Amino acid sequence: MSPKITAHRAPGTRDFLPDEMALRERVRRVIEGTFQLYGFQPLETPATERLEILTGKYGEEADRLIFKILKRGEELSAAMASPESGKASGELADLGLRYDLTVPLARVIAMHRGELTYPFKRYQIQPVWRAERQQKGRYREFVQCDADIVGTSSVSADAEIIALTDDILQRLAIPGYRIHINHRMLLQGLVEYCGAPKDRFVDVAVAVDKLDKIGWDGVSEELMRKNIGSGIMDKIRTTIDHSYSTPQEFLDGLDADLQAQPSAKRGIEELNQIFKDLKACGISQSRLSLTLRLARGLDYYTGPIFETLIEEPKIGSITGGGRYDNLIGVFSGETIPATGTTIGIERIFDVMRELNLFGEVTAPSAQVLVAVFSEETRAESLKIAAELRRAGISAEVYLEPPKKLAKQFAYADKKRIPFVVIAGPDELSRGEVTVKRLSSGGQIHVSRDHLVEQIGKEIENGRPD
Amino acid sequence: MSPKITAHRAPGTRDFLPDEMALRERVRRVIEGTFQLYGFQPLETPATERLEILTGKYGEEADRLIFKILKRGEELSAAMASPESGKASGELADLGLRYDLTVPLARVIAMHRGELTYPFKRYQIQPVWRAERQQKGRYREFVQCDADIVGTSSVSADAEIIALTDDILQRLAIPGYRIHINHRMLLQGLVEYCGAPKDRFVDVAVAVDKLDKIGWDGVSEELMRKNIGSGIMDKIRTTIDHSYSTPQEFLDGLDADLQAQPSAKRGIEELNQIFKDLKACGISQSRLSLTLRLARGLDYYTGPIFETLIEEPKIGSITGGGRYDNLIGVFSGETIPATGTTIGIERIFDVMRELNLFGEVTAPSAQVLVAVFSEETRAESLKIAAELRRAGISAEVYLEPPKKLAKQFAYADKKRIPFVVIAGPDELSRGEVTVKRLSSGGQIHVSRDHLVEQIGKEIENGRPD
Repeated sequence: MSPKITAHRAPGTRDFLPDEMALRERVRRVIEGTFQLYGFQPLETPATERLEILTGKYGEEADRLIFKILKRGEELSAAMASPESGKASGELADLGLRYDLTVPLARVIAMHRGELTYPFKRYQIQPVWRAERQQKGRYREFVQCDADIVGTSSVSADAEIIALTDDILQRLAIPGYRIHINHRMLLQGLVEYCGAPKDRFVDVAVAVDKLDKIGWDGVSEELMRKNIGSGIMDKIRTTIDHSYSTPQEFLDGLDADLQAQPSAKRGIEELNQIFKDLKACGISQSRLSLTLRLARGLDYYTGPIFETLIEEPKIGSITGGGRYDNLIGVFSGETIPATGTTIGIERIFDVMRELNLFGEVTAPSAQVLVAVFSEETRAESLKIAAELRRAGISAEVYLEPPKKLAKQFAYADKKRIPFVVIAGPDELSRGEVTVKRLSSGGQIHVSRDHLVEQIGKEIENGRPD
Repeated sequence: MSPKITAHRAPGTRDFLPDEMALRERVRRVIEGTFQLYGFQPLETPATERLEILTGKYGEEADRLIFKILKRGEELSAAMASPESGKASGELADLGLRYDLTVPLARVIAMHRGELTYPFKRYQIQPVWRAERQQKGRYREFVQCDADIVGTSSVSADAEIIALTDDILQRLAIPGYRIHINHRMLLQGLVEYCGAPKDRFVDVAVAVDKLDKIGWDGVSEELMRKNIGSGIMDKIRTTIDHSYSTPQEFLDGLDADLQAQPSAKRGIEELNQIFKDLKACGISQSRLSLTLRLARGLDYYTGPIFETLIEEPKIGSITGGGRYDNLIGVFSGETIPATGTTIGIERIFDVMRELNLFGEVTAPSAQVLVAVFSEETRAESLKIAAELRRAGISAEVYLEPPKKLAKQFAYADKKRIPFVVIAGPDELSRGEVTVKRLSSGGQIHVSRDHLVEQIGKEIENGRPD
């Protein structure tokens, strides 16, 4: 064994102790349960992927954030002996840690194409790793939580993803959220309609996406620097800011030339269908918003896009997604349409904690501590615990050598175990045991034969609801 | 986007598609539920640990199996520029992937010492990574499933771990298993009693541990090579193989000199207490075995040790653990007693699959497919699905553009969705919908207003139990 080493975690990682685990499990269960209510099915993929699967999918900057795994054994020796090794770190690594859940999904689709039924509706809740610069609230290992529908171009799938998002946030009782919806093709049409060159779409989208942060002045400045003139700029601004009371009214009110532009036309039709579907699902209009400012950063979106913002706390989007018809097929060599969303479970934890939405969630603890009066009665205490567990009642036996009962009560108290059973020799000789309810301090004598039944009732009565 | 790349997984890793996920989830839920019945609480730690935390804990051979993560940015450049980099791969990596769940537990105890209540009973179910040579049934990423009790030397804790193990295997209905129990101090005492030098304990333990594989002849040969004479050898064999009907009888029947040897004495006392506890818990003697051959490979065990073997299939131990009083404190700089077990969940999956114990477990699928008759009735179909989900009934809406109903039935069939709701214009005009049960092909007409209630009943009736 090595000499004492100071215990530190890897930078940007966290341990989840029991109470924190209970909070996370609760949110996770709501999300997973809702995924299943919509017929989504679980998938898990390994943490490590071959580097060639991961790189070149997320852009250059993201590629630098992929954690790479050193080759092993002879391959490592060979790589280190090679004259290249001083230059290309890529030579030294063959695997990387999963950066998101979408590229692994694309790989799974390519490898298991024939085993799946389409549309394939899958959810995946697993950690991803990014070697980001350390800052508060940003982690290098965090859980992603994705639902995607693969294999249909139908805009009904996009609407379903939005309805699913809304349902999850309703079930989690997140206050004051709004799902913003836009369409990449309407944005594309808008850029062309305003007179900007077709290939400047991404520049405009990226600038407009920052609107909330930098305002129109900032956007103008950024586009000016990219040689997009103020005439174009004004037209974009007028279109985007034009006010409305319903999405339908907004779309109907768009300039006829814009409505006629082919990309825009398709975008408008699909948006209309989406809002119609969402209305049929009974989703309140107040929680939805058609937002032409929304562009979403990632290059790979091709159709409807959506993200959820909340007023408080200021934390960025808590869900985000859209249609990406060209990514899933990257390993299959064909086009496979897909749409989906990430539910930002880590941010949702933060929001719920900040807004005190968790109430009294604590780690699951046993419902009963069976005290041990003396070595002579230990066997009886073990027997009682076994009976309780067989009846589905969680129970601990005091494990340390028998001590004063006060010490055993203190242990139960610290562990938030609500009941203590005391089976001392006097009680046992009378065919009885004592059940103490720690919250009130009250205690009752119960026939040993009816103990399990009686505790079941006490637990039932003790429920807060 | 890069040109087409052949999709391969990282070697030794697996994808879990929905049906496989359902099997894994089922086993996991039983194990987790049983952990909680005994008052164990969940813990999760990050996948990555600093290399200095991981290395030097598992022995030299294991250290080579740790996946190491390449340094990043400037630190990598510096490491690669250094003249050392050609020699020491350790210079190039700063993190490693979790190799087991015990060292991370030790780190957590050191970092969160004051936040925990002792004895701290924690369970942890997370993947670990080992760069093992590839072979059938051996994976480089696999889930470990540990329960440990930290902070008490009481042998009651060891007994509880064994009782927990038995309870899990009972609940999973694993046939023909036996939990083998021994004590490192009894083994130590035995080695000394037989006349072998004290420091040869590990040699003897390692050889005896192979008994089932290589027989007494093999063990003799191996010990001979290590200069442990045949006189010693014979004495060991006689003691280990001496027959008995109960553990108590076996221990009582040991030679008086062995019983008086200090290490052996302590081991015998503790084993007696453990078997007494297990009897009190109601565990059938036929599932337990006192086995002096059991040594367990890992150096770090200090007290009782246990592992579970099954007759069929031949797969090695399916659980294994013991007391390890010197490991948890390695980062805390003090001795912290601990005992625990790994439930070999991956091997248990394999056993259950091999023995056909899973029955008809399939991925969770929706209970209802709401067909879409035409674009005009899509809104009503969406409304029906939303109502079903609000009532807790999982439902899909057919997402593709409306097609012949036969196609929609085929989709439901492939996805094992038992009911299809058809809300065509004729039916709707009569205030009705049709509910078709795919298994029988039978269908009923139901009032639109009572649809949710009616489907709830149909699902209830359709349950196999």
